[in-house]
Amino acid sequence: MSQTEALTPTLQLAFDLISRHSVTPEDAGCQELMIERLEAIGFTVERLRFGNVDNFWARRGTEAPVLAFAGHTDVVPTGPEANWKHAPFEPVIDDKGMLYGRGAADMKGSLASMVVACEEFVAANPNHKGSIAFLITSDEEGPAVNGTVKVVEHLEARNEKMTWCIVGEPSSTHHTGDIIKNGRRGSLGAKLLVKGVQGHVAYPHLARNPIHQVAPALAELSAEHWDAGNEYFPATSFQISNINGGTGATNVIPGDVEVVFNFRFSTELTADQIKQRVHGILDKHELEYDLQWTLNGLPFLTPEGDLVDACRSAILEATHITTELSTSGGTSDGRFIAPTGTQVVELGPCNATIHKVNEHILADDLNKLTGIYQGVMARLLT
Amino acid sequence: MSQTEALTPTLQLAFDLISRHSVTPEDAGCQELMIERLEAIGFTVERLRFGNVDNFWARRGTEAPVLAFAGHTDVVPTGPEANWKHAPFEPVIDDKGMLYGRGAADMKGSLASMVVACEEFVAANPNHKGSIAFLITSDEEGPAVNGTVKVVEHLEARNEKMTWCIVGEPSSTHHTGDIIKNGRRGSLGAKLLVKGVQGHVAYPHLARNPIHQVAPALAELSAEHWDAGNEYFPATSFQISNINGGTGATNVIPGDVEVVFNFRFSTELTADQIKQRVHGILDKHELEYDLQWTLNGLPFLTPEGDLVDACRSAILEATHITTELSTSGGTSDGRFIAPTGTQVVELGPCNATIHKVNEHILADDLNKLTGIYQGVMARLLT
Repeated sequence: MSQTEALTPTLQLAFDLISRHSVTPEDAGCQELMIERLEAIGFTVERLRFGNVDNFWARRGTEAPVLAFAGHTDVVPTGPEANWKHAPFEPVIDDKGMLYGRGAADMKGSLASMVVACEEFVAANPNHKGSIAFLITSDEEGPAVNGTVKVVEHLEARNEKMTWCIVGEPSSTHHTGDIIKNGRRGSLGAKLLVKGVQGHVAYPHLARNPIHQVAPALAELSAEHWDAGNEYFPATSFQISNINGGTGATNVIPGDVEVVFNFRFSTELTADQIKQRVHGILDKHELEYDLQWTLNGLPFLTPEGDLVDACRSAILEATHITTELSTSGGTSDGRFIAPTGTQVVELGPCNATIHKVNEHILADDLNKLTGIYQGVMARLLT
Repeated sequence: MSQTEALTPTLQLAFDLISRHSVTPEDAGCQELMIERLEAIGFTVERLRFGNVDNFWARRGTEAPVLAFAGHTDVVPTGPEANWKHAPFEPVIDDKGMLYGRGAADMKGSLASMVVACEEFVAANPNHKGSIAFLITSDEEGPAVNGTVKVVEHLEARNEKMTWCIVGEPSSTHHTGDIIKNGRRGSLGAKLLVKGVQGHVAYPHLARNPIHQVAPALAELSAEHWDAGNEYFPATSFQISNINGGTGATNVIPGDVEVVFNFRFSTELTADQIKQRVHGILDKHELEYDLQWTLNGLPFLTPEGDLVDACRSAILEATHITTELSTSGGTSDGRFIAPTGTQVVELGPCNATIHKVNEHILADDLNKLTGIYQGVMARLLT
């Protein structure tokens, strides 16, 4: 008996998905596999290719409320395959019950659980309330320009709304379901160019050293208390990711220095308030500078309510775990969905090994996740 | 009549030297040209090749005191020749009396003046007091490892001393002789590596940002009052020349940041005192760091005395200019000679165009410089 024959339907589908080399923006047939299964249980599917990115929207039912599952079939690159214990696109469950493979946690495992959960839920509840939907992209790990954001625009254009959305991102820390993300901080990036006057280190009075000028400003930005966060959000955080100045020569005062920094911000501040305060600090230090901002995502928040309640209760039933709400971590496609008024949570397996070599999760956690997703549907659509 | 036939002996020799493509470490025959002239007037010459660098030591006389002329036949690269008004190795005097060519100011013009000054002085004073000497290298503009420093070691090994030394570096600002350098600041370089803990900008509590940590320390180093200088030296100056940290990615907190800085320091401080104070500031900010120091040169000073007096008086006689003493500017080979106990000054033409395209000086300034050098010899050796 081969390993796959002994697998649950969820793990069989996870194996099928992980076997496909779908590094961003490739989908490598994952979506067709999901579409086939969803059409078989009554979903209407709309394939939406934008640029070089495959996406689809699938819906079962025409009524509100709409419970959508969202996710991505693309995975991050493997890095050197020689560093993997098992080939990254050849899924395997080891003797400790661990499922290895690129995408096992982020997030082909969740996709398998979503599809199988729907199959089982629809079999038991063919006439469920409202609608079930899928919003799937193959460009979440990449530029995220031709993926979820475009599908959402497409739906908004015809005023098609999701009431609730579960994003299958790996939200958990120790056990599947121990943490769900009910929001994410905003992300605001900036590139700062501070200008000085180049010269010889032996003649500093003829030059103006931009590194000397920017240092106290950076010290102040690093020490600044931006906000205290709130019930749902940790305090806004400022981080410098890159600083570069100098000609390479040891006897030349450089003409400028470039500093790249990023804010992860709570709902206590707007991007404009942050920008204003940064300009205030830079101006106070009398810097001559250019500053280019990039707003990567606004913060979003789904306060406690019917979606969060349904998730908590389904998790407790399936795993006996009490869930914690969190808004920490990086951005996700939830940032594109929440602004339409949809309640959004991220609920998926453990994230300890995502984007690393030897990505893995406890295989049985995917079976539990299938149960959790079914439980949420039961609570919201029956 | 060609241009060179109309030239003074000093300018004829300057033309001959500038015509040779002696970019560091090449000498291109300049030294043999000088040697031929010096041997003809009774100098004993010792050719001293170290590594790929030609040097020579020449001396006329065996007695003390010894007045040495020091200099270099190498020049810095031309940069794009198309940017020059006249080909850099084809010296020309324009209609304003300006001598153009790479090395006109730094310092083939001075070498020509030294040789011709000796010829004229020896002709008039065949039995001068003490000795006249030349210490010439072709590696002053480069690494300066196989040049003057090696010749000085060679002389020290046999306890041969210079009493006075005139380095022909272009010391002047507006008119030849308006400034002589009677010392130079020390130069102390450092490479600082501040270590943090790399991580994702979204999880700053799992990382330690070395740029944030170093910023207040750099602000403090930049604001520090190191000393007030003294009668001869400007205040010690600290300059950061390079700072580099970051992976290039905008969402990664880097694991370390490298800062390169340099002190130009007066005789009020020792290199060890500076090091101690820098460590004190870095330690106060609780940085985890590596710090590598490079002592490029100790400060040196020739206080007012017989050499400075002779130079001042010779300049006044030849040009009617009152000389100023200065210790500003970059390092020179004087740093290798002064520690042997020699009185050292730098006295040469104007430095406004050195190392630039279209290097030039007023041609007649070299004739004046010949007169000045002769005047110094007359004051010290007759």
